[in-house]
Amino acid sequence: MNRVWTAALVVIGDEILSGRTEEKNIAQVANWLNRQGVRLAEARVVPDVLEAIVDAVNALRPVHDYVFTTGGIGPTHDDITVDSIAAAFGVPVVVHPQARLVLEDYYRGRPGGLTEARLRMARVPEGAELIPNPTSGAPGVRMGNVYILAGVPNIARSMLEGLEGKLEGGSPIVSVTVRAHVAESDVALLLKEVQDEHPGVSIGSYPFYGGGKFGADFVVRSEDADLAEGCARVLRDRLKAADFEVVSG
Amino acid sequence: MNRVWTAALVVIGDEILSGRTEEKNIAQVANWLNRQGVRLAEARVVPDVLEAIVDAVNALRPVHDYVFTTGGIGPTHDDITVDSIAAAFGVPVVVHPQARLVLEDYYRGRPGGLTEARLRMARVPEGAELIPNPTSGAPGVRMGNVYILAGVPNIARSMLEGLEGKLEGGSPIVSVTVRAHVAESDVALLLKEVQDEHPGVSIGSYPFYGGGKFGADFVVRSEDADLAEGCARVLRDRLKAADFEVVSG
Repeated sequence: MNRVWTAALVVIGDEILSGRTEEKNIAQVANWLNRQGVRLAEARVVPDVLEAIVDAVNALRPVHDYVFTTGGIGPTHDDITVDSIAAAFGVPVVVHPQARLVLEDYYRGRPGGLTEARLRMARVPEGAELIPNPTSGAPGVRMGNVYILAGVPNIARSMLEGLEGKLEGGSPIVSVTVRAHVAESDVALLLKEVQDEHPGVSIGSYPFYGGGKFGADFVVRSEDADLAEGCARVLRDRLKAADFEVVSG
Repeated sequence: MNRVWTAALVVIGDEILSGRTEEKNIAQVANWLNRQGVRLAEARVVPDVLEAIVDAVNALRPVHDYVFTTGGIGPTHDDITVDSIAAAFGVPVVVHPQARLVLEDYYRGRPGGLTEARLRMARVPEGAELIPNPTSGAPGVRMGNVYILAGVPNIARSMLEGLEGKLEGGSPIVSVTVRAHVAESDVALLLKEVQDEHPGVSIGSYPFYGGGKFGADFVVRSEDADLAEGCARVLRDRLKAADFEVVSG
């Protein structure tokens, strides 16, 4: 079995904790990490408070291969992610010369040009590298194993695209879904038996209601595609043998 | 100033961390807590792993008035929240007599009746109380200051409705939104000035793009409605005086 690569995500923003804004980055970061062969092992949502960000990042960066953050990298007073990551690493904040050039170019000809507020977006912890961002002027930032992304989901996505294939990882996790019109509670024992017979595979059970029928999706996941497929086949056969209606998978 | 009541949320589920399922409970728990006068101070997403759940709950329950969990209370092998909370409190898991009655009633006349798997949903940490759940048979559970809710958002919502008004809290947080067609970076300094002039008020800045125009929502939040309204008025006047287009608020 290959070594498992893990990451944690720190979602930064009062707007998530106040309920104003639905969280949208956990799922997209998780799916992107899966494709890089890295497992999202945990996520935390913290407020726009320096100590809270520092505590979360410093708790997570020694125990995971990668830490991603989203949010708090805009030009306003509540955007304190760069300052917080610098504090977490114990380094000063500096203006990154290349980020400054990117912003000068981006704001050339726009009213006001590169104002002091806009220049805030070129600030990085000393020693950091930039993550290119084709969508808007402000780049993302990598500091050690911490990747600082935007909070706006489509800008975060564009930064992830810029990082595609650049992270070291293991095998992508393969998932096979078996959908059946069953009550979870009728197959709980069957599921556990099938999982216990297949080490290296996990089976998740997710009930749904749709088209006037109750059912459940059984998601079989493994780093080994053959194991996942084999386990899904056994599960499917076992469900059919017990006269349950398997819809797909 | 009244004392601030805080809560943390532990979202339990591999399906969130794998990216399969979009997280939907943070926002609804946060909004519900606001109405109870309790602030959601942090949230964590953890996998279906007992140690991870125990660690998160035991880190959070001493530092917040309330801890909520969502997910992992169904009948299948990956539903281990009750076992984990019992482990966190160092108590055994028992079948709650009232929960058993509720389930017996719910499954009476359904094929199989109250099977062993279904009876799993009557298990609680010893000493826990039930949270009524009109939507489905399985009740939520309160253990000390930990409130165990379902992961399926509409069932979680129904359990929150059952708790309405039952939590001790402070003043609900009032938020007033001022929307303007401005670039955040053009008003960063103005925002900071207005916030600094209004202690007890926070101003969040959230850019948007809609109807062919860029803009930002400035969300003024305070426990004191008069303070929030007053600050929003000053912000609105200051934006207009600087010739920015204020849309609403």
